[in-house]
Amino acid sequence: MKRIGIVLSGCGVNDGSEIQEAVLTLLAIDRAGADAVCFAPDIPQLQVVNHLSGEQTDERRNVLVEAARIARGQIQPLSVANADDLDALIVPGGYGVAKNLSNLAQTGADCEVDAELARLVQALHLQRKPLGFICIAPALLPKILAVPLRLTLGTDVNAAEMVDAMGAIHVTCPVDDIVIDGDNNIITTPAYMQETSIAEVAKGIDKLVARVLEFIP
Amino acid sequence: MKRIGIVLSGCGVNDGSEIQEAVLTLLAIDRAGADAVCFAPDIPQLQVVNHLSGEQTDERRNVLVEAARIARGQIQPLSVANADDLDALIVPGGYGVAKNLSNLAQTGADCEVDAELARLVQALHLQRKPLGFICIAPALLPKILAVPLRLTLGTDVNAAEMVDAMGAIHVTCPVDDIVIDGDNNIITTPAYMQETSIAEVAKGIDKLVARVLEFIP
Repeated sequence: MKRIGIVLSGCGVNDGSEIQEAVLTLLAIDRAGADAVCFAPDIPQLQVVNHLSGEQTDERRNVLVEAARIARGQIQPLSVANADDLDALIVPGGYGVAKNLSNLAQTGADCEVDAELARLVQALHLQRKPLGFICIAPALLPKILAVPLRLTLGTDVNAAEMVDAMGAIHVTCPVDDIVIDGDNNIITTPAYMQETSIAEVAKGIDKLVARVLEFIP
Repeated sequence: MKRIGIVLSGCGVNDGSEIQEAVLTLLAIDRAGADAVCFAPDIPQLQVVNHLSGEQTDERRNVLVEAARIARGQIQPLSVANADDLDALIVPGGYGVAKNLSNLAQTGADCEVDAELARLVQALHLQRKPLGFICIAPALLPKILAVPLRLTLGTDVNAAEMVDAMGAIHVTCPVDDIVIDGDNNIITTPAYMQETSIAEVAKGIDKLVARVLEFIP
Protein backbone atom coordinates (compact mmCIF):
# COMPACT_ATOMS: atom_id res chain seq x y z
CA MET A 1 0.00 0.00 0.00
CA LYS A 2 1.34 3.43 -0.94
CA ARG A 3 2.19 5.59 2.07
CA ILE A 4 1.42 9.28 1.67
CA GLY A 5 2.82 11.61 4.32
CA ILE A 6 0.54 14.47 5.37
CA VAL A 7 2.03 17.43 7.23
CA LEU A 8 -0.51 19.25 9.39
CA SER A 9 0.08 22.58 11.13
CA GLY A 10 -2.62 22.72 13.81
CA CYS A 11 -6.40 22.57 13.64
CA GLY A 12 -8.29 25.54 12.19
CA VAL A 13 -7.84 27.81 9.18
CA ASN A 14 -6.75 30.93 11.10
CA ASP A 15 -4.00 29.44 13.27
CA GLY A 16 -3.47 25.89 11.98
CA SER A 17 -4.31 23.53 9.15
CA GLU A 18 -7.42 24.34 7.15
CA ILE A 19 -9.62 21.55 8.52
CA GLN A 20 -11.74 20.97 5.42
CA GLU A 21 -8.69 20.80 3.13
CA ALA A 22 -6.99 18.33 5.48
CA VAL A 23 -10.06 16.08 5.72
CA LEU A 24 -10.65 16.18 1.95
CA THR A 25 -7.04 15.11 1.47
CA LEU A 26 -7.43 12.18 3.88
CA LEU A 27 -10.68 11.19 2.12
CA ALA A 28 -9.16 11.21 -1.38
CA ILE A 29 -6.16 9.18 -0.23
CA ASP A 30 -8.30 6.55 1.50
CA ARG A 31 -10.69 6.30 -1.44
CA ALA A 32 -7.70 5.63 -3.71
CA GLY A 33 -6.63 2.73 -1.48
CA ALA A 34 -3.49 4.46 -0.22
CA ASP A 35 -2.42 5.04 3.39
CA ALA A 36 -2.25 8.56 4.88
CA VAL A 37 0.50 8.97 7.50
CA CYS A 38 0.03 12.20 9.44
CA PHE A 39 2.77 14.35 10.96
CA ALA A 40 2.96 17.75 12.62
CA PRO A 41 5.77 19.66 14.31
CA ASP A 42 5.82 19.33 18.11
CA ILE A 43 6.10 23.09 18.70
CA PRO A 44 3.92 25.87 20.17
CA GLN A 45 1.47 27.53 17.81
CA LEU A 46 2.47 31.09 16.89
CA GLN A 47 -1.06 32.21 17.82
CA VAL A 48 -4.41 30.94 18.97
CA VAL A 49 -7.23 32.65 17.07
CA ASN A 50 -10.90 32.65 18.12
CA HIS A 51 -12.49 31.40 14.89
CA LEU A 52 -15.86 32.92 15.79
CA SER A 53 -14.64 36.49 16.34
CA GLY A 54 -11.43 36.32 14.30
CA GLU A 55 -9.55 37.82 17.28
CA GLN A 56 -6.23 36.53 18.58
CA THR A 57 -6.46 35.18 22.15
CA ASP A 58 -3.84 34.77 24.88
CA GLU A 59 -4.17 30.97 24.90
CA ARG A 60 -1.20 28.67 24.26
CA ARG A 61 -1.63 25.53 22.16
CA ASN A 62 0.74 22.96 20.61
CA VAL A 63 0.71 22.32 16.86
CA LEU A 64 1.02 18.52 17.11
CA VAL A 65 -1.56 18.21 19.89
CA GLU A 66 -4.14 20.29 18.00
CA ALA A 67 -3.43 18.61 14.66
CA ALA A 68 -4.20 15.30 16.39
CA ARG A 69 -7.86 16.42 16.45
CA ILE A 70 -8.06 16.21 12.66
CA ALA A 71 -6.15 12.90 12.58
CA ARG A 72 -8.19 11.28 15.40
CA GLY A 73 -4.94 10.83 17.38
CA GLN A 74 -3.21 8.96 14.54
CA ILE A 75 -0.31 11.38 14.12
CA GLN A 76 3.42 11.53 14.84
CA PRO A 77 5.93 14.32 15.43
CA LEU A 78 7.33 15.67 12.17
CA SER A 79 10.82 14.95 13.53
CA VAL A 80 10.33 11.20 13.03
CA ALA A 81 9.18 11.45 9.40
CA ASN A 82 11.60 9.64 7.08
CA ALA A 83 11.57 10.12 3.33
CA ASP A 84 12.60 6.48 2.81
CA ASP A 85 9.35 5.33 4.44
CA LEU A 86 7.05 7.55 2.36
CA ASP A 87 6.02 7.39 -1.29
CA ALA A 88 4.84 11.00 -1.48
CA LEU A 89 4.02 14.03 0.68
CA ILE A 90 1.02 16.35 0.80
CA VAL A 91 0.77 19.60 2.77
CA PRO A 92 -2.75 21.07 3.21
CA GLY A 93 -3.15 24.82 3.68
CA GLY A 94 -4.42 27.14 6.38
CA TYR A 95 -2.60 29.96 8.18
CA GLY A 96 -0.75 27.30 10.17
CA VAL A 97 1.47 26.91 7.10
CA ALA A 98 2.35 30.61 7.29
CA LYS A 99 2.48 30.83 11.10
CA ASN A 100 3.72 27.43 12.34
CA LEU A 101 5.47 25.70 9.41
CA SER A 102 7.18 28.97 8.48
CA ASN A 103 7.17 32.65 9.35
CA LEU A 104 5.59 33.57 6.01
CA ALA A 105 2.75 35.46 7.76
CA GLN A 106 5.26 37.86 9.32
CA THR A 107 8.01 38.10 6.71
CA GLY A 108 6.45 37.25 3.35
CA ALA A 109 8.88 36.43 0.54
CA ASP A 110 11.84 36.49 2.97
CA CYS A 111 10.35 33.76 5.16
CA GLU A 112 12.15 30.80 6.71
CA VAL A 113 10.64 27.32 6.68
CA ASP A 114 10.54 24.84 9.58
CA ALA A 115 13.82 22.91 9.35
CA GLU A 116 12.19 19.48 9.78
CA LEU A 117 9.74 20.16 6.97
CA ALA A 118 12.49 21.52 4.69
CA ARG A 119 14.69 18.48 5.28
CA LEU A 120 11.84 16.05 4.59
CA VAL A 121 10.75 17.81 1.40
CA GLN A 122 14.34 18.03 0.13
CA ALA A 123 14.90 14.32 0.74
CA LEU A 124 11.68 13.34 -1.04
CA HIS A 125 12.52 15.66 -3.97
CA LEU A 126 15.93 14.03 -4.33
CA GLN A 127 14.16 10.67 -4.56
CA ARG A 128 11.80 12.02 -7.27
CA LYS A 129 8.78 11.34 -5.04
CA PRO A 130 5.71 13.53 -5.71
CA LEU A 131 4.89 16.55 -3.58
CA GLY A 132 1.33 17.89 -3.36
CA PHE A 133 1.00 21.37 -1.83
CA ILE A 134 -2.41 22.94 -1.24
CA CYS A 135 -3.67 26.52 -0.75
CA ILE A 136 -0.90 28.74 0.71
CA ALA A 137 1.51 25.81 1.23
CA PRO A 138 3.06 26.07 -2.28
CA ALA A 139 4.56 29.42 -1.20
CA LEU A 140 7.03 27.49 0.98
CA LEU A 141 8.47 25.47 -1.92
CA PRO A 142 10.78 28.15 -3.40
CA LYS A 143 12.31 28.56 0.09
CA ILE A 144 12.91 24.78 0.37
CA LEU A 145 14.02 23.71 -3.12
CA ALA A 146 16.75 25.63 -4.96
CA VAL A 147 15.47 24.77 -8.42
CA PRO A 148 13.17 26.53 -10.92
CA LEU A 149 9.57 25.86 -9.89
CA ARG A 150 6.09 26.29 -11.37
CA LEU A 151 3.26 26.51 -8.86
CA THR A 152 -0.06 28.16 -8.11
CA LEU A 153 -1.59 30.13 -5.27
CA GLY A 154 -4.77 30.63 -7.28
CA THR A 155 -5.80 33.89 -8.87
CA ASP A 156 -4.67 36.51 -6.35
CA VAL A 157 -2.29 39.10 -7.82
CA ASN A 158 -0.44 39.80 -4.57
CA ALA A 159 0.18 36.11 -3.98
CA ALA A 160 1.48 35.75 -7.53
CA GLU A 161 3.85 38.68 -7.03
CA MET A 162 5.16 37.12 -3.82
CA VAL A 163 5.91 33.86 -5.65
CA ASP A 164 7.69 35.80 -8.39
CA ALA A 165 9.75 37.61 -5.74
CA MET A 166 10.78 34.22 -4.38
CA GLY A 167 12.10 33.26 -7.80
CA ALA A 168 9.42 30.75 -8.84
CA ILE A 169 6.92 30.97 -11.69
CA HIS A 170 3.34 31.56 -10.58
CA VAL A 171 0.62 29.99 -12.74
CA THR A 172 -2.92 31.33 -12.32
CA CYS A 173 -5.32 28.47 -11.60
CA PRO A 174 -9.01 28.17 -10.62
CA VAL A 175 -9.99 26.43 -7.37
CA ASP A 176 -11.21 23.27 -9.11
CA ASP A 177 -7.94 22.61 -10.94
CA ILE A 178 -4.24 21.90 -10.36
CA VAL A 179 -0.87 23.04 -11.67
CA ILE A 180 1.68 20.35 -12.45
CA ASP A 181 5.43 20.99 -12.38
CA GLY A 182 6.50 17.89 -14.28
CA ASP A 183 10.22 18.58 -13.91
CA ASN A 184 9.92 18.46 -10.14
CA ASN A 185 6.99 16.10 -9.62
CA ILE A 186 5.13 18.86 -7.78
CA ILE A 187 1.34 19.37 -7.90
CA THR A 188 -0.37 22.44 -6.43
CA THR A 189 -4.02 23.56 -6.09
CA PRO A 190 -5.46 26.85 -4.71
CA ALA A 191 -8.25 25.44 -2.47
CA TYR A 192 -9.35 28.10 0.04
CA MET A 193 -6.88 30.77 -1.20
CA GLN A 194 -10.12 32.45 -2.25
CA GLU A 195 -13.60 32.34 -0.72
CA THR A 196 -15.29 29.36 -2.39
CA SER A 197 -17.30 26.26 -1.52
CA ILE A 198 -16.13 22.96 -0.07
CA ALA A 199 -17.29 21.03 -3.14
CA GLU A 200 -15.13 23.24 -5.39
CA VAL A 201 -12.16 22.78 -3.08
CA ALA A 202 -12.73 19.02 -3.18
CA LYS A 203 -12.49 19.00 -6.99
CA GLY A 204 -9.00 20.51 -6.87
CA ILE A 205 -7.82 18.30 -4.01
CA ASP A 206 -9.21 15.15 -5.64
CA LYS A 207 -7.24 15.98 -8.80
CA LEU A 208 -4.12 16.74 -6.77
CA VAL A 209 -4.27 13.46 -4.84
CA ALA A 210 -4.91 11.47 -8.04
CA ARG A 211 -1.83 12.95 -9.71
CA VAL A 212 0.33 12.55 -6.60
CA LEU A 213 -0.50 8.85 -6.55
CA GLU A 214 -0.05 8.50 -10.32
CA PHE A 215 3.39 10.16 -10.22
CA ILE A 216 4.83 7.87 -7.54
CA PRO A 217 7.97 6.37 -9.13
CA MET B 1 -31.95 26.54 -2.13
CA LYS B 2 -32.64 24.01 0.61
CA ARG B 3 -31.27 25.04 4.01
CA ILE B 4 -29.91 22.19 6.13
CA GLY B 5 -29.13 23.02 9.76
CA ILE B 6 -25.99 21.37 11.16
CA VAL B 7 -25.52 21.23 14.92
CA LEU B 8 -21.86 20.99 15.95
CA SER B 9 -20.62 20.29 19.48
CA GLY B 10 -17.01 21.49 19.43
CA CYS B 11 -14.00 20.49 17.33
CA GLY B 12 -12.46 17.06 17.87
CA VAL B 13 -13.76 13.54 18.37
CA ASN B 14 -12.89 13.24 22.08
CA ASP B 15 -14.42 16.46 23.40
CA GLY B 16 -16.41 17.91 20.48
CA SER B 17 -17.77 17.14 17.04
CA GLU B 18 -16.02 14.37 15.12
CA ILE B 19 -14.22 16.59 12.60
CA GLN B 20 -14.20 14.17 9.69
CA GLU B 21 -17.91 13.38 10.05
CA ALA B 22 -18.74 17.09 10.19
CA VAL B 23 -16.67 17.91 7.10
CA LEU B 24 -18.07 14.95 5.15
CA THR B 25 -21.56 16.20 5.99
CA LEU B 26 -20.75 19.73 4.76
CA LEU B 27 -19.23 18.26 1.57
CA ALA B 28 -22.23 16.07 0.76
CA ILE B 29 -24.66 18.97 1.33
CA ASP B 30 -22.67 21.36 -0.88
CA ARG B 31 -22.26 18.75 -3.63
CA ALA B 32 -26.05 18.30 -3.64
CA GLY B 33 -26.54 22.04 -4.18
CA ALA B 34 -28.04 22.66 -0.75
CA ASP B 35 -26.95 25.17 1.88
CA ALA B 36 -25.44 24.07 5.21
CA VAL B 37 -26.27 26.40 8.11
CA CYS B 38 -24.08 25.65 11.12
CA PHE B 39 -25.01 26.09 14.77
CA ALA B 40 -23.47 25.18 18.11
CA PRO B 41 -24.44 25.92 21.72
CA ASP B 42 -22.63 28.91 23.25
CA ILE B 43 -21.61 27.01 26.39
CA PRO B 44 -18.36 25.78 27.99
CA GLN B 45 -17.12 22.37 26.87
CA LEU B 46 -17.50 19.69 29.54
CA GLN B 47 -13.85 18.76 28.99
CA VAL B 48 -10.82 19.55 26.88
CA VAL B 49 -9.03 16.37 25.83
CA ASN B 50 -5.48 16.21 24.46
CA HIS B 51 -6.13 14.24 21.25
CA LEU B 52 -2.51 13.07 21.05
CA SER B 53 -2.33 11.52 24.53
CA GLY B 54 -6.04 10.95 25.12
CA GLU B 55 -5.71 12.65 28.51
CA GLN B 56 -8.10 15.25 29.87
CA THR B 57 -6.45 18.67 30.40
CA ASP B 58 -7.32 21.58 32.69
CA GLU B 59 -8.00 23.94 29.76
CA ARG B 60 -11.35 25.66 29.28
CA ARG B 61 -12.87 26.04 25.81
CA ASN B 62 -16.25 27.14 24.44
CA VAL B 63 -18.31 24.80 22.24
CA LEU B 64 -19.39 27.47 19.75
CA VAL B 65 -15.92 29.04 19.48
CA GLU B 66 -14.23 25.69 18.82
CA ALA B 67 -16.94 24.50 16.42
CA ALA B 68 -16.27 27.68 14.42
CA ARG B 69 -12.95 26.09 13.39
CA ILE B 70 -14.76 23.41 11.40
CA ALA B 71 -17.21 25.92 9.93
CA ARG B 72 -14.51 28.50 9.02
CA GLY B 73 -16.30 31.03 11.22
CA GLN B 74 -19.64 30.60 9.45
CA ILE B 75 -21.63 29.50 12.49
CA GLN B 76 -24.29 30.88 14.84
CA PRO B 77 -25.36 30.17 18.41
CA LEU B 78 -27.81 27.28 18.60
CA SER B 79 -30.18 29.62 20.49
CA VAL B 80 -31.00 31.52 17.28
CA ALA B 81 -31.83 28.41 15.21
CA ASN B 82 -35.45 28.49 14.06
CA ALA B 83 -37.21 25.44 12.66
CA ASP B 84 -39.24 27.63 10.30
CA ASP B 85 -36.03 28.74 8.55
CA LEU B 86 -34.64 25.23 8.05
CA ASP B 87 -35.68 22.41 5.72
CA ALA B 88 -33.90 19.68 7.67
CA LEU B 89 -31.35 19.13 10.45
CA ILE B 90 -28.22 16.97 10.67
CA VAL B 91 -26.19 16.27 13.81
CA PRO B 92 -22.70 14.76 13.31
CA GLY B 93 -21.17 12.61 16.05
CA GLY B 94 -18.18 12.78 18.35
CA TYR B 95 -18.03 12.78 22.14
CA GLY B 96 -19.22 16.39 22.06
CA VAL B 97 -22.70 14.96 21.50
CA ALA B 98 -22.41 12.97 24.73
CA LYS B 99 -20.52 15.65 26.70
CA ASN B 100 -21.76 19.02 25.41
CA LEU B 101 -25.13 18.42 23.70
CA SER B 102 -26.20 16.11 26.53
CA ASN B 103 -24.80 14.41 29.61
CA LEU B 104 -24.96 10.98 27.95
CA ALA B 105 -21.26 10.32 28.68
CA GLN B 106 -21.92 10.58 32.42
CA THR B 107 -25.47 9.23 32.80
CA GLY B 108 -26.10 6.91 29.83
CA ALA B 109 -29.73 6.01 29.17
CA ASP B 110 -30.92 8.49 31.84
CA CYS B 111 -29.27 11.46 30.12
CA GLU B 112 -30.70 14.92 29.58
CA VAL B 113 -30.37 16.72 26.25
CA ASP B 114 -29.43 20.39 25.74
CA ALA B 115 -32.74 22.28 25.88
CA GLU B 116 -32.06 24.35 22.76
CA LEU B 117 -31.30 21.25 20.70
CA ALA B 118 -34.35 19.41 22.05
CA ARG B 119 -36.64 22.34 21.24
CA LEU B 120 -35.27 22.66 17.68
CA VAL B 121 -35.55 18.94 16.96
CA GLN B 122 -39.09 18.78 18.37
CA ALA B 123 -40.19 21.73 16.22
CA LEU B 124 -38.70 20.22 13.06
CA HIS B 125 -40.27 16.85 13.82
CA LEU B 126 -43.69 18.49 14.23
CA GLN B 127 -43.21 20.00 10.77
CA ARG B 128 -42.28 16.57 9.32
CA LYS B 129 -38.85 17.86 8.30
CA PRO B 130 -36.11 15.21 8.01
CA LEU B 131 -33.59 14.62 10.78
CA GLY B 132 -30.20 13.02 10.04
CA PHE B 133 -28.27 11.85 13.11
CA ILE B 134 -24.75 10.43 12.79
CA CYS B 135 -22.56 8.19 14.98
CA ILE B 136 -23.55 8.53 18.69
CA ALA B 137 -26.00 11.39 18.00
CA PRO B 138 -28.99 9.07 17.38
CA ALA B 139 -28.83 8.10 21.08
CA LEU B 140 -30.25 11.53 21.94
CA LEU B 141 -33.40 11.05 19.86
CA PRO B 142 -35.39 8.87 22.31
CA LYS B 143 -34.78 11.55 24.98
CA ILE B 144 -36.08 14.31 22.66
CA LEU B 145 -39.05 12.71 20.85
CA ALA B 146 -41.75 10.87 22.80
CA VAL B 147 -42.66 8.54 19.92
CA PRO B 148 -41.60 5.01 18.89
CA LEU B 149 -38.27 5.30 17.05
CA ARG B 150 -36.06 3.05 14.92
CA LEU B 151 -32.39 4.03 14.79
CA THR B 152 -28.85 2.68 14.64
CA LEU B 153 -25.66 3.12 16.60
CA GLY B 154 -23.93 0.52 14.41
CA THR B 155 -23.05 -2.97 15.54
CA ASP B 156 -22.05 -2.52 19.18
CA VAL B 157 -24.10 -4.63 21.60
CA ASN B 158 -23.81 -2.23 24.55
CA ALA B 159 -24.94 0.70 22.44
CA ALA B 160 -27.91 -1.33 21.21
CA GLU B 161 -28.86 -2.22 24.79
CA MET B 162 -28.70 1.44 25.79
CA VAL B 163 -31.07 2.36 22.96
CA ASP B 164 -33.43 -0.41 24.03
CA ALA B 165 -33.32 0.89 27.62
CA MET B 166 -34.34 4.30 26.28
CA GLY B 167 -37.42 2.76 24.68
CA ALA B 168 -36.39 2.91 21.02
CA ILE B 169 -35.70 0.05 18.60
CA HIS B 170 -32.04 -0.41 17.72
CA VAL B 171 -31.31 -1.68 14.20
CA THR B 172 -27.83 -3.12 13.57
CA CYS B 173 -26.22 -1.39 10.59
CA PRO B 174 -22.75 -1.41 8.94
CA VAL B 175 -20.76 1.81 8.67
CA ASP B 176 -21.43 2.24 4.95
CA ASP B 177 -25.21 2.15 5.29
CA ILE B 178 -28.13 3.97 6.92
CA VAL B 179 -31.30 3.14 8.87
CA ILE B 180 -34.47 4.94 7.85
CA ASP B 181 -37.35 5.53 10.25
CA GLY B 182 -40.01 6.38 7.68
CA ASP B 183 -42.69 7.15 10.24
CA ASN B 184 -40.58 9.91 11.72
CA ASN B 185 -38.50 11.04 8.74
CA ILE B 186 -35.32 10.15 10.65
CA ILE B 187 -32.15 8.79 9.04
CA THR B 188 -29.19 7.47 11.08
CA THR B 189 -25.75 6.08 10.21
CA PRO B 190 -23.02 4.63 12.49
CA ALA B 191 -19.94 6.44 11.08
CA TYR B 192 -17.08 6.30 13.63
CA MET B 193 -19.06 4.34 16.25
CA GLN B 194 -16.51 1.68 15.35
CA GLU B 195 -12.89 1.98 14.19
CA THR B 196 -13.11 2.23 10.41
CA SER B 197 -11.80 4.33 7.52
CA ILE B 198 -12.87 7.78 6.38
CA ALA B 199 -13.95 6.47 2.97
CA GLU B 200 -16.32 3.98 4.65
CA VAL B 201 -17.72 6.71 6.89
CA ALA B 202 -18.24 8.88 3.80
CA LYS B 203 -20.38 6.17 2.17
CA GLY B 204 -22.80 6.20 5.08
CA ILE B 205 -22.88 9.98 5.39
CA ASP B 206 -23.36 10.44 1.63
CA LYS B 207 -26.39 8.11 1.81
CA LEU B 208 -27.74 9.90 4.87
CA VAL B 209 -27.47 13.36 3.29
CA ALA B 210 -29.05 12.12 0.03
CA ARG B 211 -32.07 10.75 1.93
CA VAL B 212 -32.37 13.81 4.16
CA LEU B 213 -32.62 16.00 1.06
CA GLU B 214 -34.99 13.58 -0.69
CA PHE B 215 -37.33 13.47 2.32
CA ILE B 216 -37.76 17.25 2.60
CA PRO B 217 -41.52 17.84 2.37
